[in-house]
Amino acid sequence: PAGLVLASDSRSNAGVDNIARVSKLTTISVPGNRVIAIQSSGNLATTQTGVTQLQPAAGSGDPHMAVTLTRPMFHVAAIVGAKLREVVMLDGKFVEPYGDPAASFLVSGQIAGERPRLFEVYSAGNFVEASARSNFLQIGEAKYGKPILDRALEPTSSLV
Amino acid sequence: PAGLVLASDSRSNAGVDNIARVSKLTTISVPGNRVIAIQSSGNLATTQTGVTQLQPAAGSGDPHMAVTLTRPMFHVAAIVGAKLREVVMLDGKFVEPYGDPAASFLVSGQIAGERPRLFEVYSAGNFVEASARSNFLQIGEAKYGKPILDRALEPTSSLV
Repeated sequence: PAGLVLASDSRSNAGVDNIARVSKLTTISVPGNRVIAIQSSGNLATTQTGVTQLQPAAGSGDPHMAVTLTRPMFHVAAIVGAKLREVVMLDGKFVEPYGDPAASFLVSGQIAGERPRLFEVYSAGNFVEASARSNFLQIGEAKYGKPILDRALEPTSSLV
Repeated sequence: PAGLVLASDSRSNAGVDNIARVSKLTTISVPGNRVIAIQSSGNLATTQTGVTQLQPAAGSGDPHMAVTLTRPMFHVAAIVGAKLREVVMLDGKFVEPYGDPAASFLVSGQIAGERPRLFEVYSAGNFVEASARSNFLQIGEAKYGKPILDRALEPTSSLV
């Protein structure tokens, strides 16, 4: 069996003495058709605005714009990227005097009939995909975990 | 016998301590008709997006747009160049604040009835072809290997 393993923490800090817990994992599912997970890092206002505007209720019904309708997963990643690009483009220059507006997402999941896929979406809206050679992706404060994952994970690692 | 020898590494780095292995060689083949190899260097999001959109499943069925249908190899290189140009044009100005969106491809292979051919496709979508006078092409970090290839390779070098 093939699958994805996702992990998120919930620590958010805006300065050393302003720490809060927030959800950094959002799932959007259409029973029997798809499960999509969006994990976030970076500017919380940027990521929350982007994710909120992706929710099905905010959808236009246009299959080219709705992560609940489009396929393949590559297009889901492209839609999330376009939304993130839009938020950064609209808010970025106003936010910059106060802090970094940048953010990134891990977009993953499976659409019926496709294999599970995992993408990293950058602030610029472009994205890369995990593969057999590069079988995990990280966002946020990734340095400490990377050597551990580099040593422990293989494309053939068991999911159980 | 005539042929092509292709070599790719798999190292990708986004900063000195963010190193990953990725595939930089994609082959697209139509049994009995053609084998096309696309090797990539430069911005990984740019190259992955370009190559993914060239895959047969993403094709329009239009012979002028499908690398599996068009001929000769010169037109295959032109299609890959047009796709790369499109990706850089759509994403480039958003990516530039974070890093270089540029990328390049080696496009090579053979279509039944033609000789093997090898092209280097630039970010701008234009391209050059290898020839008897210039019998190899390199992309990416090419400096170290070039003097070795300059000394070792002749158009008449044996393939075995």
